[in-house]
Amino acid sequence: MKASKLKEFEPIFYPCSIAVAGASADTGKMGTKWVNGLLAAGFKGEIYPVNPMGGEISGLKIYPNLKAIPKPVDLVIVCIPRQFVLNLLDDCAASGVKAVHFFTAGFRETGDPEWIRVEEEMAAKARQGNFRIIGPNCIGIYCPEQRMPYGPSSLLGAAGTVGFISQSGGHAGKLLEIGLGRGIHFSKVISMGNGSDLDSLDFLEYLAVDPKTAIIGAYLEGARDARHLFQAIKNVSPAKPIVVWKGGRTEPGAEAAASHTGALTASASLWSAALKQAGAIEVQGLEELADTMLLLQQLGRIRGNNVGIVCGLTDGGGGESVLAGDACAAFGLNVPPFSEKTKAHLTALLGQVGSILRNPLDISQGYGNTRIVEQAMELVSREPHLDLIIVYENVDILLRFLSAEITEIMNNIFIGFHRRQSKPIVVVLPRGSKEKERLEIEDKFSREGIPVYPTIERAARAIAHVTRYYSRLHKGSTEKSRQ
Amino acid sequence: MKASKLKEFEPIFYPCSIAVAGASADTGKMGTKWVNGLLAAGFKGEIYPVNPMGGEISGLKIYPNLKAIPKPVDLVIVCIPRQFVLNLLDDCAASGVKAVHFFTAGFRETGDPEWIRVEEEMAAKARQGNFRIIGPNCIGIYCPEQRMPYGPSSLLGAAGTVGFISQSGGHAGKLLEIGLGRGIHFSKVISMGNGSDLDSLDFLEYLAVDPKTAIIGAYLEGARDARHLFQAIKNVSPAKPIVVWKGGRTEPGAEAAASHTGALTASASLWSAALKQAGAIEVQGLEELADTMLLLQQLGRIRGNNVGIVCGLTDGGGGESVLAGDACAAFGLNVPPFSEKTKAHLTALLGQVGSILRNPLDISQGYGNTRIVEQAMELVSREPHLDLIIVYENVDILLRFLSAEITEIMNNIFIGFHRRQSKPIVVVLPRGSKEKERLEIEDKFSREGIPVYPTIERAARAIAHVTRYYSRLHKGSTEKSRQ
Repeated sequence: MKASKLKEFEPIFYPCSIAVAGASADTGKMGTKWVNGLLAAGFKGEIYPVNPMGGEISGLKIYPNLKAIPKPVDLVIVCIPRQFVLNLLDDCAASGVKAVHFFTAGFRETGDPEWIRVEEEMAAKARQGNFRIIGPNCIGIYCPEQRMPYGPSSLLGAAGTVGFISQSGGHAGKLLEIGLGRGIHFSKVISMGNGSDLDSLDFLEYLAVDPKTAIIGAYLEGARDARHLFQAIKNVSPAKPIVVWKGGRTEPGAEAAASHTGALTASASLWSAALKQAGAIEVQGLEELADTMLLLQQLGRIRGNNVGIVCGLTDGGGGESVLAGDACAAFGLNVPPFSEKTKAHLTALLGQVGSILRNPLDISQGYGNTRIVEQAMELVSREPHLDLIIVYENVDILLRFLSAEITEIMNNIFIGFHRRQSKPIVVVLPRGSKEKERLEIEDKFSREGIPVYPTIERAARAIAHVTRYYSRLHKGSTEKSRQ
Repeated sequence: MKASKLKEFEPIFYPCSIAVAGASADTGKMGTKWVNGLLAAGFKGEIYPVNPMGGEISGLKIYPNLKAIPKPVDLVIVCIPRQFVLNLLDDCAASGVKAVHFFTAGFRETGDPEWIRVEEEMAAKARQGNFRIIGPNCIGIYCPEQRMPYGPSSLLGAAGTVGFISQSGGHAGKLLEIGLGRGIHFSKVISMGNGSDLDSLDFLEYLAVDPKTAIIGAYLEGARDARHLFQAIKNVSPAKPIVVWKGGRTEPGAEAAASHTGALTASASLWSAALKQAGAIEVQGLEELADTMLLLQQLGRIRGNNVGIVCGLTDGGGGESVLAGDACAAFGLNVPPFSEKTKAHLTALLGQVGSILRNPLDISQGYGNTRIVEQAMELVSREPHLDLIIVYENVDILLRFLSAEITEIMNNIFIGFHRRQSKPIVVVLPRGSKEKERLEIEDKFSREGIPVYPTIERAARAIAHVTRYYSRLHKGSTEKSRQ
C-alpha cells in the first residue's frame, strides 16, 4: 500500500520530465514564465516547452505537440486557453503521460453548465487515458527536493518536513513566503484548485506515507468526499499532526469559495466537530496555520502546557508580565508559580524593588545585565514542572537601553539555552519601530530553530494547539495500552 | 471647569521648567539619562539637574537641592532611591513646585506594609504641599508639543490627536514605538504607575477637555474609584471616542498586575459590562488598541459597516477573497453584493474566467494592469451603499509578478482615491518574505493618512470597533432628538 502510493505519485512530485503546454518565444506568456521558472530553480528533470507555433525558449526547443516529444513525459503543465484542453488530453493519453496539471482555469468555478461539463469530461479522459489530473485552476506542485518552484516563478526555499495541501494557490504561495521569512521548511506544497480528479483526500493519503513529510497542513474550502477525508485524517493524525484551516466559514466567504474553486462548502460547525473528532488541529487563518506548523516543526513534541515566562529583559517588564499572564491563561496554558527555592534565588539576584518575582518573571531590575539574564534563565529552566520557556524580548526597548553588542550577547544566551536543549524555548519579538533590526534578530533565532512570534497571544495560541494535540494523543495511547 | 482643569494640568504637560532629582555627572545614572533625553529632544523649558554631590551635566549646573534653584520649578522628575523620597517632598513643598513625577519605584507594588505606608505619606505630603504626584513607579509624561520625550530617552514623535493613559510604562512605550512605525500621532502619553495621587480618572478628565486630544486610549489594570471613572468615560465618550484595554483579566495576569502597580483588579466581565455601558470601545491587547486608534485617527467617522473588498491585485485573489469575506463577516461587517450594473461593468472589464465578480472582488484576471485596477476601484467606489473599501495588497505577489515601478504606479492609484475622498480606504498589506519592501509601502500609505493593517482580520476587527461606536453614538443622538 505504502510503496504503491509512493510510486503512483512519483511522476507528480519527482517527475523525470515536465512538458509545458502553452510556452512560447513570447516571454510575457504564462507558459514561458513556467519554463523559465523551472530553469531558474534548477529543476532536476528534463523540460519540454510545447506550442504549435514552434520556436525556442532559453535554448530549449519548443515542440509543436506532446506527441512530437521523443522521450517519455511524466508531467504536463497546461497554460493554454480552456477551449483547447480536451484536445490536449487526447494527446496526453496517446503519449502516455503520467499526470497533467492545469494552471488553466475557467471550469466548474464559473458556475457555467457548459464548462462544468468540460471539467467532468477532463476527469473522464484522465481515467480512460490512465493518467491523473492536478487542478484545474491551480498553481500545482512545489517540491524543493526536486527543485520544482512554486508556480510560474523561481520561488524555492529549503526542503523540510512540512507538507501542505491547499485549495487556494494564493494562500499556499503566501504560506511559502511566510515560511521563507520565519524558517518553515516544506517537503511538498500542493495547490489543488478544483480537484476534479486528485482531491485533498488523495494528496493527504500520499503525504501520510511520504517519508519526507512529518507534519501536514491544509487549507480547504470543501471536500468532495468529506466522510473519507475525515477518516483519512483520523488515521494519519496520530502519526503526523494535521493542521487544518477551513475557508468559507461564513456566507460571504462561502460565496467567494463557490466562485473560487467551485467548492461546495459545508457548515463550519460540522467541520469543526468532525476535525476535532478526527484529531486534527483546527485553525482560523493563515497566520495561525503558520504559527502552529512552525512550532510543530521546530519543537516537535511538547511535554505539557506549563509555561515559564521571562519578561522585561532590560525594562518594561511589568506590563509585559500582565499581558503575558493574561494571554497564556486566555489560551488555556498554565503559568504555575515558581518553587520557594527559586523565588529566594531570584530575590537574591534581582532584589525586590520593581521586580515581579513570580511567573511571569520580570527581570527588568537586572537592567539588561547579561550575567543576570543568564542566571535568571538558568533558574527558570531548572524548574522541573515547567515544560517550556517563553522569552519576551522587546527589541525596541533593548536597543533604546543597551548597545547592539550587548543585545547580541543576550540573544546568544538564549541560543545557548536552546542548544543545550534544557527546555524548549519560544521567543516573542513584538513589532515596533526598529523593524529592520528586529527582523535580523528573528532571522538569527529562526536559523537556530527557535520559533519566533510577533505577539505573546500568537505564541500562546500555537503552544495551546500543539500541547492539546499531544495531550490527546498521549491520552489516546494510554487508553489503548490499557485495553 | 474646562479652563481651570487645563490650568491645573499645565505644569504637568507644559512645564516651563523641570528639575531632575538624581541626575549626576555619572552618565550611567538614570537621572542623567533623563536630563540628556530632555536636552536631545529639545525640551522647550528650563532643565535643572539636582544632586547633593553637585557638578555638571552636558553644560548644565547640578544644584545640590531643590531649594538652591533660583527660579520656580514646575515639575520634578524623581530618580533617587526610595528611602530619600519623603525628604525630597518636603523640599518640593518648600520650593513651591507644582508637580512631582516619581520614576522611583518600590512602594505599594511590593506588597510590603512599610512601603505602602510610605506611598500613602507621599500622597499626604502632596496634598499638604499643594502639588500633584504622577506615579510612583512610572515613566511619566510624554508631550511632543512641549518636546518632552518618553522616559529617560529622546524618544519623540510628531504631535497628533491621540491621548493615551497607561498603568504600564512598558505598554505605553511599545504603543509609542508602534505609533512611530504606523503613523499614530499622540497629543499626550501618560504612564501613571501606581497612581497614588493623580489617577486614571484625573488624567481622563484632563484629556476630555484638552483641545489637542480628539481620541483617548487607556491601558488600565484597575481603578481606585471605578464608579467615577466609568461615569467620566460615559460623559466623555460621545465627544471623544475612548478605547480601553483592561490588563489582568485572568488569574496569572491579575497576580502580575498586583506586583506591577499594586492595582486591585476587578472582575474582567464586570469591567466589560461597565465599559460597554459607558460607551467605550473595549479591546484585548496592544495591537488591537493600536489598530483601533489608528483607524479613529486616520478616518474619523465611518458612516456604516458595509465594506467593499478588492483582492488579487495581480494574482492570488481567490483565496484572498474567501479569507476576506470570512474575516469581515466574522467581525460583523456587511459585505453586500454589487449592483447588477457594476457587475456588468466588471464582467466587461475582467471577463468571467478565473474572476470573482462579486464582493469581495477578485481582479487578478487583470494581471496587474494598472488601468484595470483603477477602473475596478472606480466602479467599487461608486457603489452608493458601500461605506468603506478594503484593498488587499499582497506585496510578495505583486513584486513577484510586476516590477517595482508598476507596483508604485498601482499604489499611487490607491493614494489618488484616498486623496479624492470618494470613499474611505483601508489597505491590508500581509507580511511575508519581502518585509523591507513591504515596510516602505506601509510607510508611504501611512504618510498619506491611509490606515494599513498586516491582516484582514485585524483590519476587520478595527473597522467593526469603530463603526459600532459611531452607530451607537448615532442611535443615541437620534433617540435624544426624539425626546
